[in-house]
Amino acid sequence: MKHIINDKKIAIEAMLHSYQFEHQGRLSIDLKDHIIYYKKDSGVSLISGGGSGHEPAHFGYVGKGMLTASVNGALFTPPYPDRIMRAVELTDNGDGVLFIVKNFASDVEMFTEAKKRAEASGHKVEMVIVCDDVSVENKDTYSKRKRGVAGTVLAHKILGYFSQIGKSLTELKVIADEFIPHLYTLGVALSSAELPNTDRFFSLGENEVYYGIGIHGEKGYRKESFESSEQLAIELYNKLKKLHQFKQGEHYAFLINGLGATPLLEQYVFTHDIQRLAVLDKINIDFIKTGTQLSSYNMQGISLTCLKLTDPLFEIALQADVDASHW
Amino acid sequence: MKHIINDKKIAIEAMLHSYQFEHQGRLSIDLKDHIIYYKKDSGVSLISGGGSGHEPAHFGYVGKGMLTASVNGALFTPPYPDRIMRAVELTDNGDGVLFIVKNFASDVEMFTEAKKRAEASGHKVEMVIVCDDVSVENKDTYSKRKRGVAGTVLAHKILGYFSQIGKSLTELKVIADEFIPHLYTLGVALSSAELPNTDRFFSLGENEVYYGIGIHGEKGYRKESFESSEQLAIELYNKLKKLHQFKQGEHYAFLINGLGATPLLEQYVFTHDIQRLAVLDKINIDFIKTGTQLSSYNMQGISLTCLKLTDPLFEIALQADVDASHW
Repeated sequence: MKHIINDKKIAIEAMLHSYQFEHQGRLSIDLKDHIIYYKKDSGVSLISGGGSGHEPAHFGYVGKGMLTASVNGALFTPPYPDRIMRAVELTDNGDGVLFIVKNFASDVEMFTEAKKRAEASGHKVEMVIVCDDVSVENKDTYSKRKRGVAGTVLAHKILGYFSQIGKSLTELKVIADEFIPHLYTLGVALSSAELPNTDRFFSLGENEVYYGIGIHGEKGYRKESFESSEQLAIELYNKLKKLHQFKQGEHYAFLINGLGATPLLEQYVFTHDIQRLAVLDKINIDFIKTGTQLSSYNMQGISLTCLKLTDPLFEIALQADVDASHW
Repeated sequence: MKHIINDKKIAIEAMLHSYQFEHQGRLSIDLKDHIIYYKKDSGVSLISGGGSGHEPAHFGYVGKGMLTASVNGALFTPPYPDRIMRAVELTDNGDGVLFIVKNFASDVEMFTEAKKRAEASGHKVEMVIVCDDVSVENKDTYSKRKRGVAGTVLAHKILGYFSQIGKSLTELKVIADEFIPHLYTLGVALSSAELPNTDRFFSLGENEVYYGIGIHGEKGYRKESFESSEQLAIELYNKLKKLHQFKQGEHYAFLINGLGATPLLEQYVFTHDIQRLAVLDKINIDFIKTGTQLSSYNMQGISLTCLKLTDPLFEIALQADVDASHW
């Protein structure tokens, strides 16, 4: 497979450099440490990050009303603690820092170490771990297999709103603990991602799909012969319905996420199938968004995120205006 | 190849339905005629459209400061005149209508016929034909091979701004005639698009690229063995440089457009190569934007658009705030 890059080692820097050039005036860059950020005069700094290859996550969500900084690691590899620590130094104005971390062992390890170091330097830091992937139905909430995937973008948006309106670090942590347990995502692959100079992570037959895949090439729970968008919608929707135990009149937010190489037309066709299923169950879709929000590089596939809106404020947070390029 | 759709015949309707549902309150839909629009109290209505399969073009650009309506045809097939005429009826508030049309024979034919009918019904209509594709170096400005491609999105933005600040239909036509001759685009494919139930339009070797391709599977001008992003950047940049005759100190806007299946990381790496070439030539990049703005469905590839900013107002127009989901 052809990849439009030069040297793999400098691809991340080239990407961040040109992204910040596009958004100069609004966003700043620490090129050495792969950080995109902006300066807030007051309010909690929200820092997220992880491996590269998931664009537009996370730098596309840096801006007023969403993240304060993103830190990029290498392809599918989280950033080192010193880089995260540098993002803390660049953005903490004294009101503290909240890390929003996708639940992968190595991501959690890097951010935990950075938290320790930042606290030792006098910063107030809290950490929120997003673990929305329900592909492995494990009852341990923070089991290693309950990965952090596309739902993380909703967490950025909700927490970004509450930070913007002045909530404290302690309050943000309470808010996160309130909605994250109700945030579920399930994905399906039509093809594996393929990184530069790397083999495909798994192979699928010409007409096969793979349910429950992760965003780093992790394998799914079942392969099946592909028929239609509706077939995929029914599988993903029903799994989330069962976990949420949808009841008539309840309020939900949905995110339909293209995993990289899925045409927007197909993402919206799938969305239409989800909407029709929600109508049958008489649940309220108070918020819905479709797009390539957290990709698995060039994977063909889609994921469905469903958040139960246990508080009307969460809908307000999702609908609020924001100054981020890719929300 | 697998496509996340159900029946090909209703895919466009499903897509438009779910897009409008996402943007309800801000945008309206005429589902029968495949129109996404909003109501302007005053000012010229800007209507664009064309075949589907180029998402987010054009519905992603409907909103305050950009298009007033978009009309979708079938996949890679322009809409019929009666649908365009319907968009005129829905959005003309008496200040007239400007059609922004990509230069393909059938698109021009459909919009010309709609213009005739709209004028017969008493509407004031002007038409702007975007012909930015320079892959065939033909001196006839409106030659059939001088197609309308990604530069069309810059035309939406510039004309949308001037419509928003109250320019008349006649003035908008004059403005379009001023910048469109300086709007050039050139693309390269790493793979052919592949529509549902259709074969690939052309085939490329495992390590081959194709310069000068169109957005509907039209063939390019040269195949070459692929080496790097820099190689592609040099080919596209130098062709545009030669046509514009770049001179030190001149002002330009660039659009780097992913053609569908190209990861954002690769788009930004390519952008970085373009920036470096522009620095060598000492031209000013006053505006730059990278993203999948006008796709060729699931084609892997990229295009480079370069607009010479003959008036500082064009930069202001490109930078102005806008209420469109995909700008």
